[in-house]
Amino acid sequence: MSTATAYALLSANGVFEKTTIERRELRPTDVRIAIKFAGICHSDIHTARQEWGTSSFPLVPGHEIAGIVEEVGSQVSRLSPGDRVGVGCMVNSCRECENCLAGEEQYCAKGNIGTYNSKDVDDTITLGGYSTTIVVDEHFVASIPEGISLEHAAPLLCAGITMYSPLKRWGAGPGKRVAILGLGGLGHVGVKIAKAMGAEVSILSRSTGKEVDAARLGASNFYITEDRETMRSLRNHFDLIVNTVSAPIKVDSFLSLLRFNGVLTNVGVSPEPMSARFSSLAQNNRALAASGIGGMRETQEMLNFCAAHGVGAEIEVISGSEIDAAYDRVVASDVRYRFVIDISTFH
Amino acid sequence: MSTATAYALLSANGVFEKTTIERRELRPTDVRIAIKFAGICHSDIHTARQEWGTSSFPLVPGHEIAGIVEEVGSQVSRLSPGDRVGVGCMVNSCRECENCLAGEEQYCAKGNIGTYNSKDVDDTITLGGYSTTIVVDEHFVASIPEGISLEHAAPLLCAGITMYSPLKRWGAGPGKRVAILGLGGLGHVGVKIAKAMGAEVSILSRSTGKEVDAARLGASNFYITEDRETMRSLRNHFDLIVNTVSAPIKVDSFLSLLRFNGVLTNVGVSPEPMSARFSSLAQNNRALAASGIGGMRETQEMLNFCAAHGVGAEIEVISGSEIDAAYDRVVASDVRYRFVIDISTFH
Repeated sequence: MSTATAYALLSANGVFEKTTIERRELRPTDVRIAIKFAGICHSDIHTARQEWGTSSFPLVPGHEIAGIVEEVGSQVSRLSPGDRVGVGCMVNSCRECENCLAGEEQYCAKGNIGTYNSKDVDDTITLGGYSTTIVVDEHFVASIPEGISLEHAAPLLCAGITMYSPLKRWGAGPGKRVAILGLGGLGHVGVKIAKAMGAEVSILSRSTGKEVDAARLGASNFYITEDRETMRSLRNHFDLIVNTVSAPIKVDSFLSLLRFNGVLTNVGVSPEPMSARFSSLAQNNRALAASGIGGMRETQEMLNFCAAHGVGAEIEVISGSEIDAAYDRVVASDVRYRFVIDISTFH
Repeated sequence: MSTATAYALLSANGVFEKTTIERRELRPTDVRIAIKFAGICHSDIHTARQEWGTSSFPLVPGHEIAGIVEEVGSQVSRLSPGDRVGVGCMVNSCRECENCLAGEEQYCAKGNIGTYNSKDVDDTITLGGYSTTIVVDEHFVASIPEGISLEHAAPLLCAGITMYSPLKRWGAGPGKRVAILGLGGLGHVGVKIAKAMGAEVSILSRSTGKEVDAARLGASNFYITEDRETMRSLRNHFDLIVNTVSAPIKVDSFLSLLRFNGVLTNVGVSPEPMSARFSSLAQNNRALAASGIGGMRETQEMLNFCAAHGVGAEIEVISGSEIDAAYDRVVASDVRYRFVIDISTFH
């Protein structure tokens, strides 16, 4: 057992407090990581505020983790102390179901074990990345290539893979018109990745507020979804729309923007069922899809891709004492585009 | 102008009556076809009974047409008198939009011109295949290869392409588990095509009534959708489900049967919007899709494929005077699996 300094919510409706937590002894395939940066994902806030059900306290969120390997277990083969590494949304899975064997551990038939607020194999509750160290099986640790800083890489472990996986699956690339619906923590990384894949990228946004940013990030076009004439002019236009908005959207309306074989895929967790008319889907062979993060193989592929193409998150670095305020600003959409906690401020 | 003998509904709520209709003079790219067989599609009935909106009378349905070229226009290049040919659901389109140029005329930006009950370019209303002849631009005429009889080929022009297109798009083939939901006019052709593509085919049906047929048609498995235990055992099982049922289905329930990257695609025209939970789609990267028929290029490809693999519709041949009774039997699901009208009985 070792200890770590963490920022935790000790109870529901509390504020973040600096505390000491325990990390398990290294098992043979474990690595202990000295965490350097941890991104703040909107799902941290949903969990902290119990908007997705009951959470376990003390709660240490954080599943966008970047750090340096500190120590490795006796059977660790791929990683060594000093390596730059990242941990994302999961820290274990059954490792033997069809999806796990295919490297798609996020869809483990028994459910993957989340990086925080999840019951681990030893029945403890996992504690996440707002912490000075974490102990994780090496299978769930990705290497962060040189060429991308740890702070800019941290959000890629969730936001990056969440966007990369559907963009790749649905063929974002040269000659393809890709729209990102919503320019926030997910969307801004999506623009960069889709652009790096060679697609023509457009932003679909409710207002003009981020138009300059969109162009800087690599978007060729910026369209206002509230403008009916714009929406009409975009009918049958896009090959792929990636919806990053968590609020309900007008599914039929966005489907109508898709050309032949076009796909509207969702990564924003919609609280209500999504409803589509048969005719909206059948015209142009359209599809409505969704996905959650990606597997470890694809997460590594994404990190390599981002490093090779100079893709990192746009971040605002904060200290541990600023987490509560950052949460409020995320909820108010007042961040461009991801808060990253500097874990050195915990010491 | 030439005349043809047709079975028509002369008014709403009428019965089919033998009548004489006019067919246009051949334009340079037209062919006149002596129709030999015409399949009865459920959409003929929806149109006849005005369940899809107001129809034009006299109404001559029929968009599963097989016959012999009788005469060709001066600029017809591909077809000659005596050729075995088929006409499906459309007889024209704009020919210049993106989809038309891509050979996906079914999704013409201006709307394709249906084989019957549609306004043609000369403002006449199209009259379909329950008729001794039809005049169609050669672009919308497919060749029926040797090796498949005209009567067994006729239903392929609608039912065949409706199933072939999504099966091909979504990768039905060796190593893939394909389920057909509903074993009727569409489904039974889908089983044969999916089997010929090399997939393992299962039937999902509400009752056991067609289990023997399913095996004969090539299905490896037959599952009862009303059996909860069966449905539970099939979770995360199929790569592709093609829903041929026109009534609303429990979308989330069928999505749960899909494994990684699995697709639930719909060819049965659902009267209500289809509703899916985000989590049903996001688990396993699932997608909900739909499609309508296919383009002329793919229709020809489908006919060639079916002829090469000995795939034809299972039919019950009727005379012109039996159309009304056949409609009632289709509505009662009392046909295995497609009525085909023998047009020689019109003379």
